[in-house]
Amino acid sequence: MRAAVLHNYGEPLRIEDIPKPRASGTSVLVRVVGSGVCHSDVHLWRGELGTLVPPTFPLVMGHEVSGVVEEVGELVPPDIEPGMEVLVYWAYCERDDKYAQRGLYQLCGLRAGGGIALYNGGFAEYMLVPHYRYLVPVKGLRDLEAAAALADAGVTAYRAVRKAAEEVEDDDYILIVGLGGTGIFGLQLARLLTGAKIIGVDVRRDKVEAASRIARLRKGDVLIDASSVPDVRRAVMEATGGQTLRAVIDFVGVERTIETYIDLLSPLGVYIIVGLGSEYGPRIPIHKMVLNELSIKTVLYGSIRDLANLADLASRDLVNYWDIAAKIRLDDINEALEKLARGEAPYRQVVIFR
Amino acid sequence: MRAAVLHNYGEPLRIEDIPKPRASGTSVLVRVVGSGVCHSDVHLWRGELGTLVPPTFPLVMGHEVSGVVEEVGELVPPDIEPGMEVLVYWAYCERDDKYAQRGLYQLCGLRAGGGIALYNGGFAEYMLVPHYRYLVPVKGLRDLEAAAALADAGVTAYRAVRKAAEEVEDDDYILIVGLGGTGIFGLQLARLLTGAKIIGVDVRRDKVEAASRIARLRKGDVLIDASSVPDVRRAVMEATGGQTLRAVIDFVGVERTIETYIDLLSPLGVYIIVGLGSEYGPRIPIHKMVLNELSIKTVLYGSIRDLANLADLASRDLVNYWDIAAKIRLDDINEALEKLARGEAPYRQVVIFR
Amino acid sequence: MRAAVLHNYGEPLRIEDIPKPRASGTSVLVRVVGSGVCHSDVHLWRGELGTLVPPTFPLVMGHEVSGVVEEVGELVPPDIEPGMEVLVYWAYCERDDKYAQRGLYQLCGLRAGGGIALYNGGFAEYMLVPHYRYLVPVKGLRDLEAAAALADAGVTAYRAVRKAAEEVEDDDYILIVGLGGTGIFGLQLARLLTGAKIIGVDVRRDKVEAASRIARLRKGDVLIDASSVPDVRRAVMEATGGQTLRAVIDFVGVERTIETYIDLLSPLGVYIIVGLGSEYGPRIPIHKMVLNELSIKTVLYGSIRDLANLADLASRDLVNYWDIAAKIRLDDINEALEKLARGEAPYRQVVIFR
Amino acid sequence: MRAAVLHNYGEPLRIEDIPKPRASGTSVLVRVVGSGVCHSDVHLWRGELGTLVPPTFPLVMGHEVSGVVEEVGELVPPDIEPGMEVLVYWAYCERDDKYAQRGLYQLCGLRAGGGIALYNGGFAEYMLVPHYRYLVPVKGLRDLEAAAALADAGVTAYRAVRKAAEEVEDDDYILIVGLGGTGIFGLQLARLLTGAKIIGVDVRRDKVEAASRIARLRKGDVLIDASSVPDVRRAVMEATGGQTLRAVIDFVGVERTIETYIDLLSPLGVYIIVGLGSEYGPRIPIHKMVLNELSIKTVLYGSIRDLANLADLASRDLVNYWDIAAKIRLDDINEALEKLARGEAPYRQVVIFR
Repeated sequence: MRAAVLHNYGEPLRIEDIPKPRASGTSVLVRVVGSGVCHSDVHLWRGELGTLVPPTFPLVMGHEVSGVVEEVGELVPPDIEPGMEVLVYWAYCERDDKYAQRGLYQLCGLRAGGGIALYNGGFAEYMLVPHYRYLVPVKGLRDLEAAAALADAGVTAYRAVRKAAEEVEDDDYILIVGLGGTGIFGLQLARLLTGAKIIGVDVRRDKVEAASRIARLRKGDVLIDASSVPDVRRAVMEATGGQTLRAVIDFVGVERTIETYIDLLSPLGVYIIVGLGSEYGPRIPIHKMVLNELSIKTVLYGSIRDLANLADLASRDLVNYWDIAAKIRLDDINEALEKLARGEAPYRQVVIFR
Repeated sequence: MRAAVLHNYGEPLRIEDIPKPRASGTSVLVRVVGSGVCHSDVHLWRGELGTLVPPTFPLVMGHEVSGVVEEVGELVPPDIEPGMEVLVYWAYCERDDKYAQRGLYQLCGLRAGGGIALYNGGFAEYMLVPHYRYLVPVKGLRDLEAAAALADAGVTAYRAVRKAAEEVEDDDYILIVGLGGTGIFGLQLARLLTGAKIIGVDVRRDKVEAASRIARLRKGDVLIDASSVPDVRRAVMEATGGQTLRAVIDFVGVERTIETYIDLLSPLGVYIIVGLGSEYGPRIPIHKMVLNELSIKTVLYGSIRDLANLADLASRDLVNYWDIAAKIRLDDINEALEKLARGEAPYRQVVIFR
Repeated sequence: MRAAVLHNYGEPLRIEDIPKPRASGTSVLVRVVGSGVCHSDVHLWRGELGTLVPPTFPLVMGHEVSGVVEEVGELVPPDIEPGMEVLVYWAYCERDDKYAQRGLYQLCGLRAGGGIALYNGGFAEYMLVPHYRYLVPVKGLRDLEAAAALADAGVTAYRAVRKAAEEVEDDDYILIVGLGGTGIFGLQLARLLTGAKIIGVDVRRDKVEAASRIARLRKGDVLIDASSVPDVRRAVMEATGGQTLRAVIDFVGVERTIETYIDLLSPLGVYIIVGLGSEYGPRIPIHKMVLNELSIKTVLYGSIRDLANLADLASRDLVNYWDIAAKIRLDDINEALEKLARGEAPYRQVVIFR
Repeated sequence: MRAAVLHNYGEPLRIEDIPKPRASGTSVLVRVVGSGVCHSDVHLWRGELGTLVPPTFPLVMGHEVSGVVEEVGELVPPDIEPGMEVLVYWAYCERDDKYAQRGLYQLCGLRAGGGIALYNGGFAEYMLVPHYRYLVPVKGLRDLEAAAALADAGVTAYRAVRKAAEEVEDDDYILIVGLGGTGIFGLQLARLLTGAKIIGVDVRRDKVEAASRIARLRKGDVLIDASSVPDVRRAVMEATGGQTLRAVIDFVGVERTIETYIDLLSPLGVYIIVGLGSEYGPRIPIHKMVLNELSIKTVLYGSIRDLANLADLASRDLVNYWDIAAKIRLDDINEALEKLARGEAPYRQVVIFR
C-alpha cells in the first residue's frame, strides 16, 4: 500500500510502497478515507515533540482519520464489521488505569498514538488500529472525507467547550480566541451546546470572515477582527456592553493571548488553554486570580465518549465540518506540512484517497 | 466602648473609647466574644491592600469575629434575637448580582468588608453588622471565643477543601502545603470531608508537630517536616509510594511552593492557591499542564453557606478550633500584629473581652 | 386601579376598582404590561390548592407578570428605577434559609406568592412586589406583553430542561411529553441548551403542528401526534431507531403518561415530572428502576437565576415566546379561565392593559 | 476442585468435584479466599431472578469474592501476576457501549455475571474471571477472607453513599434505613465520606447494637431501634431536633419503608432505593415531590472505580469489614442460604477455604 513515511525529523515524508498490515486479535484494519493534517504534525515532523513521546522511525504519520473497516481480528465483537464507517481515536492507552476505566485514554500516559508514536497512522491507504475500542462508528455523515477533521481538531474543541459549559450560565459571555482549524469548531460548538453569548476573535481578517460564514451565530454573538481594532480588549468589552467574561477558550495559548484576555474574566471565570502553542505562558497573576476566584484549565484531545458525542452531532449536521476541509492528495503531503508551518494553510487540509 | 482603631497605615492601632453603635433597619449589633488576628490584618495595617479595597480611616479592624446578638434593627426577622450566639461573615455585598443571588457575597466586588473597608470590625467590644444575612447562628460550640477562627481562617480552608473534593477520588492523594492558621484547618477538613489520602508539609518542625496532635490523621496519611529532608518532592513521593497527587492545596501560595509541587500532580490534577501570599507565581507551565489536563484554581474566603456548614461541623466537634486559639487582650493587639508579621505567632491569636 | 378579584373559590373573578398600592421600604410598584393565565390559576380559582397555600380573600390573582417599574421604596437600590422593564418572580420567600441563600426562593416554603397567596398579583393595572430581589430586569424584548409567559411557564420549562441537561450526553434522546403552554418552551429549550436528540409528543394534532412551526428543530428531532398512532411507545422507538431515552420531561405528569414512558428509559435514565398534574402517579417500579439505576426528579417553578438566564435568552430571540401568547383584555379573564379549564385554550392567554 | 453447584432452582446446592478451569486469553484464574453469601443469592437460588438474567445450569453461585491470582491468560498485561491479592467485580459487560466506556459495567445489560449467570462464581476453590479488567488489586488488607464482603455489599453501599453525597451539605441529615449486611457499610461510609449528620434505623435491636459498636459515629449522629419506639417518624424528628432530611438511603426498599420516610425529606431531598427488596413501592406522591422538588434515585451494585476506591479505603482500615464477616465452610453453604432466607443471618456469612 502507498504511505507517506517519516524516516527522520525534518526530512520530507517519503511516499513509499509498504506492506498492507493484517488485522488479528483485537485489532482492526481501516481503509483510510480522510486523513487530516494537524498542527501537531508540524511539531512531530520537526522533532519538537521528541521529549513528549518516544521517537519512532520509520513512522507513518497522520492521527486525524476517517475510514471504513476493512478487516477485523478474531477477538473483535461482531458489531464491528467490514464496511462500517468509522472515525479513529488516536490516543491509544496501553494500561487499564483509573483514566482508561473512564474512557479517558488520552490521559493514561500518551506514550503511544496512531500516527504519533509506536503505531502507524493515516497518511497511508490503510491503518491498523490496535484495538476496536478506538473506533467510533458513524452513520449518515454527508462527507466522510472531510469528517476526518472531527477526529482531532473537532474533538479537542468539543472537550474545551464542554469544560467551559460546566462553568457558564446563559447570561454569561464566552470568548473564543483563535478561529483556525480547531477554533472554528470551538466557535460552532460553544454556540450549539451552551446558551451563553459568544465572542470570537482572530488576528486574521480572512479567518473572521470565514467563521462568520460557517458558524450559525445568533443575536448577541460577535466576531472581532483583532487586526482592525486599536485595542482588542476594549473591542471585546464594547461587544459585550461592558460585561466581563465567564470563560475564555484560548486556541492560541501563548503568553500574549493569555496576558491580554485573562484580565477580562469575571468572578469565577475560567481561562481554558487548548493545545501546545507555547511551553510557558505569563506568570500566574495570583492576586488577580484569587480576588475573583479565577481558574485556569487545560485541554488535551478528548475522551472516547467526547468523540462519539461529536460524531453524533456531526451526523445531524449540527457541526459544519464539510466546509472546513481542503482536500489534497497523498503526494502533496509535504507541501501541505510546509504551508501549515508557514501559517498559510486553510482551515484543515485533509489527505484523501479516491 | 473600647476599640482598637487604625488611623493611618503602619501606625500602631490606638485603643480608644468610641461611641457604641445602635442597630437599626436590617443591621444587628453584636457583642464581640472573640476576634481573630489574621495575616490579612498585617497586610491591611501596612497599607498593602490599599489598591484592592478603599482606604478607610479611622477603621476598627478585625474581620474574624464570634459574638452574641445584642440589639437588632426593626427590619430584622424574629428568628435573629438578642442573646443568640453567632459567627460574623465579613464580606459584605452591596449589590444583588448573580453572585449575591447564590450567597457568594465574597465575589460581588469586595469593596466593603467588616473590619476591612467602609465598615468597622471586631477589635472592639461591639460590632455593627449592616445586614442580618451576614450572621451565622451557632449552637453548642464548646468555646465561642476560639470559634472566631472559624469565621475567616476556617471558612477559607473549608472552601479550598470543597474545591479539592470535587476533583479527587478516594484512592487519590491530596497534598496540604503550609500547616499554619489556615492550613491546619485544611488538613483537618481534607481528612474529614474526603476519603482521599492526605499528605501535609510545612517548613517548621513545630507546626508539623502541632498538626500531628490536632488533626485526626489515619493510616495512609503522612506529615512531612520539609526542614528535615534534603528533597521535599522526593519525600512526598516516598510518602505516597510513588503515586502522584490529584490535588495540592497551597496555603503558602508563592512562586517557590507552586514550582515545587505542581510537578507532582497526576493527570486531571488540580493546584489550588489560597490567599494572597504573593502577587505573582511562576510562569504558567503550559505544556506540562496541557499534557496532563491540569488546572489551577483559587480560593477567596467562602460563601455564606460555606460558613454555615463549617459552623455545623464545629458544633459537632468534628473540627478542632479550640486548641488553635491563643487568647489575648485588646491591649495586646499591636504586639500580636507584630508577632504575626515576624512569623512568630502561634496558630491563631484571638482577642477576647472577658 | 382596575383589578380582577377573587372573593371565594369557584366564583367568577370580579372586575373592581381597588386602591392603587404605594411602594415603600424594599417594595416596588410595577405597572403590569402582560399577565399570563396559567393552569395553576384554574386550580387556585377552584380552591384545589387550598391545602398547599394559605387561602387569601380577597385576592388579585395572576402570577406570570411582565411590567414596568412605576415606583420604588426608599430601601431599593438605585439600579432599580422607574421606567425599567422587568419580569416578576412570584415565589416570595419570607425566610433567609439555606434555599434563599442560593436564590431558590421557590423552595423555602411557598407560603407566600404574588397572585397566589398573601400577596396580590398581576390581574390588575399595578402590582406591588414586596422586595426588589423578585424583579428580573429585561432589555430589548421584542414583545413585553407576550414575555409574561416567560415568568412562569417559561422558567418552569427552563428548570426542567436544565435538570435533564445534567444527565444527557449529545448522542442521547430526550422525550418531551406534552406540547402545551409549558411543554412548548421545554421543546425549544431542550433543542437550544443541549446537543441531544429531541422527541416531542402530544395527543392533540394542533399542538404538534404548532410546535413544529414554533420550535427550531433539527435533523434527528421528531414530533409525534399520539392521536394518530396505534402504539405511542412503538412510535417513539421507531423515531429513535430503537435507541432508548436518557431523559423524559413529562409536562402532563399523570399516571398514564408516567406508566407509558418510564419503560423507554435507558440505564441512568431520568424521568422528570413537571407540575401538579395529578396527586399520585403509578406505583414506583422498583425492580425496573434499580436494574437500570433510573431516577425520578421533579420541578417546581425555578430559581431567580433561572428566570434571569431565560430572560437573557429571550432578549436574544433564542426562545420564541411572542408566537405563543393570545392577548386578551382584563374583562375577559373569567372566560379565559373557563376555556383553560376545558382544555380549549391556545398556548398562553395573556391579559394586557393597552 | 470442590464447588457448590446449583442444578435447579430451589434445590440445595450440591458440593461436587468439578474440573479446575484454566486461564487463557484475557481471563484470569483466581484462587478463592473468601466468598460472601448475599441476599441476591437467595433470590437466585429460588429462581426469583429468572426473568432478569438468563437461567444457567449447572451454575457455581457466589458473586462476592476475594482471592489470589493463580494463573493468567496470555493477553493479560504483566501488572496482573500470580500471587496478587484481588477483589472480583462480578458484573461482566460483554459490550463496549457508552456505559462500559465509563467503567459502569453493571449498567451495560447485566446479562452475564460471575456466580449469577453464564459464568461460574466463587462458591468453589477457584473462579475463572473472563477479563482482567474485573479484578481490583488490593494491598495490605488485614483480613482478605472477610474482605469478600466489600465486593458486593460494600460497593453497593459505597455507590449509594456517593449518590447521597452529591446532594447533601454538611449541615444536612442523612437517614440510613436498614442496618444489615449492606446498610452497616452505608452507615460507616456516610459518616466517613460526608460531613452530614447521620441517623440510622433498624427494626432489630441486635442490628442497632452491633452498628453502634462497628460504626465510628460522632456527636450528632443517632441510631434508632424502631422496634422500641411507638412512632419511628417522630423518633427520627426528635433525633434531628425537628430538622427534615436531605437524603434517605433505604437498604430495605419496600412499600412500607418508602411511605414512612419519604415524608421526612426537606426541599431538594433525595430518596435512594438500594437493591431489589420489592418489585413495586407505593404510588409516586407527585404533589408532595413536586412541591419540594424531591427526587428518587436507585442503585445497582457499583462501577469498577467504585470498587477500587472502596478497596483503598478498606486498606487504610477506614471501613470496618473484618467485624462483619461470619466465616463458614463450603459444606455449610445450604444452611447459610436458609438462615439468610429466614432473616436470621449475622451481617455477612463468608465461605472460606483454609
